[in-house]
Amino acid sequence: MHHPSDPDFATRVRDSFHRQQAMALIGATMPVVEAGYTEIHLPHKPEVTQQHGFIHGGVVGMIADSAAGYAANTLTPADASVLTVEYKMNLLAPADGELLIAQGTVLKYGRTLTVTRAEVFAVKDGKKTLCAVMQQTIMTMHGKKEKHETSHKE
Amino acid sequence: MHHPSDPDFATRVRDSFHRQQAMALIGATMPVVEAGYTEIHLPHKPEVTQQHGFIHGGVVGMIADSAAGYAANTLTPADASVLTVEYKMNLLAPADGELLIAQGTVLKYGRTLTVTRAEVFAVKDGKKTLCAVMQQTIMTMHGKKEKHETSHKE
Amino acid sequence: MHHPSDPDFATRVRDSFHRQQAMALIGATMPVVEAGYTEIHLPHKPEVTQQHGFIHGGVVGMIADSAAGYAANTLTPADASVLTVEYKMNLLAPADGELLIAQGTVLKYGRTLTVTRAEVFAVKDGKKTLCAVMQQTIMTMHGKKEKHETSHKE
Amino acid sequence: MHHPSDPDFATRVRDSFHRQQAMALIGATMPVVEAGYTEIHLPHKPEVTQQHGFIHGGVVGMIADSAAGYAANTLTPADASVLTVEYKMNLLAPADGELLIAQGTVLKYGRTLTVTRAEVFAVKDGKKTLCAVMQQTIMTMHGKKEKHETSHKE
Repeated sequence: MHHPSDPDFATRVRDSFHRQQAMALIGATMPVVEAGYTEIHLPHKPEVTQQHGFIHGGVVGMIADSAAGYAANTLTPADASVLTVEYKMNLLAPADGELLIAQGTVLKYGRTLTVTRAEVFAVKDGKKTLCAVMQQTIMTMHGKKEKHETSHKE
Repeated sequence: MHHPSDPDFATRVRDSFHRQQAMALIGATMPVVEAGYTEIHLPHKPEVTQQHGFIHGGVVGMIADSAAGYAANTLTPADASVLTVEYKMNLLAPADGELLIAQGTVLKYGRTLTVTRAEVFAVKDGKKTLCAVMQQTIMTMHGKKEKHETSHKE
Repeated sequence: MHHPSDPDFATRVRDSFHRQQAMALIGATMPVVEAGYTEIHLPHKPEVTQQHGFIHGGVVGMIADSAAGYAANTLTPADASVLTVEYKMNLLAPADGELLIAQGTVLKYGRTLTVTRAEVFAVKDGKKTLCAVMQQTIMTMHGKKEKHETSHKE
Repeated sequence: MHHPSDPDFATRVRDSFHRQQAMALIGATMPVVEAGYTEIHLPHKPEVTQQHGFIHGGVVGMIADSAAGYAANTLTPADASVLTVEYKMNLLAPADGELLIAQGTVLKYGRTLTVTRAEVFAVKDGKKTLCAVMQQTIMTMHGKKEKHETSHKE
């Protein structure tokens, strides 16, 4: 459905993800990168929990924000970078499980603004439960290619 | 203006904050706890950055969410705990500075639902710049006191 | 998928809709009421436009809010009423067409809080275009049945 | 604090408001227009109510959206128009009163995107009660002046 203008979008997006030290800090990976869609996975570990032992709502927000932002980023030109303008997230259930999967999807791609959605599932004993939904606005900065030292995705 | 029902709210809220391992992971502290208001401070360090070297937008969201949620928590009875229902955040400027300050404020306290606001400032060379604003809904769980092992704030 | 506790939910929800004078003012109808799902339709007329001749964004919000709120209302007990806690809407394209269709869906039904989604399409020359997406939180007031004079849905 | 680039911003914004037929339909006026700030007033009348007799939440959203959007519009160049990208609104209390006052304020003005806030108060027996808060993103379309036939604010 989506037609990415950059044939190497997957490599470009993965490289950007790997430059985010905050993603490494929490232990997140990005195993799926398709045109207009990404997945970020986060294994449970004590360091990312709140007091109940569930994964912290703020950490759920981090991976939802990134999955949806990178979904937008797959569709931008190679010489552009993206910024999160805003997002809204509902927490539906505790992030209780051995793995979280954040699925980011582009609802509408535009030259300047792109609207995305993220859904976060907790996987426990092999069962997926929807635990958060996000609606997000992303801005594309044309001609501002991400570089190792000067990239823009936050 | 606000009349907390629990005279020991500050101790209770600080104890809850200290049980959040995710807050320790990113290096956040909560130096200010007043009735209906808290501040969370986060010093810059490489581990919490995105590729530009600024503090990651998701980390900004974590401290905004927590500051506003704990502002609500100062006003709940001692035997209650709080849950984030949802929040919406606008990122206004890069989180560029040596320190972030998230200020959480209660807009309207209700028995079941409380509406809060957070503003996050980046402090750079002694100058504060507003870098994010959040509007949030918090739910109070009455009779579900936070315990060391079974607390609820996410 | 959804299991409404009130077998007469469709009649109950339609009656509530008809008591909303603001819906009559803008000319909205609710032709579809299913368990966890409703549609509100709004024909174009000059009175509901902004300066461009498109349907006003605020009017788009009204029908999205109502479609999603009534989707939640289909699943509540007969003696309960619902309130909109909050919603967030992205406007994706001008509401340009001879008819708007707002589709409200329940994402997660809960005893106290229900999370819903609305999508609004503009129909022009037989073609549907997504023009707005909404994410919403609804609160159920148990034991507060809507009456002709004292109902609660807003 | 704000420095409008168009000295005639108040006339320009009032003219735009008067071209919105939907505002006339609900009976809204815009008595205050300052740089970065507007107020929209809405007297209670049966046509804009829900079943409880309070002003409809969707109508509250309409005037909040417009007050904040026009606050942004006061700061744009004379040859630009504005679009609502998205907004998020919390309803804090029933819109119960003889008059609603929506106050729109610019939080951060930017060349492309402006972030605003609206607060809606219900006035009853001379007392103002905060009944809704909104956080909103507005986009400026440069070089697309609003005209009588082809204006853009929605």
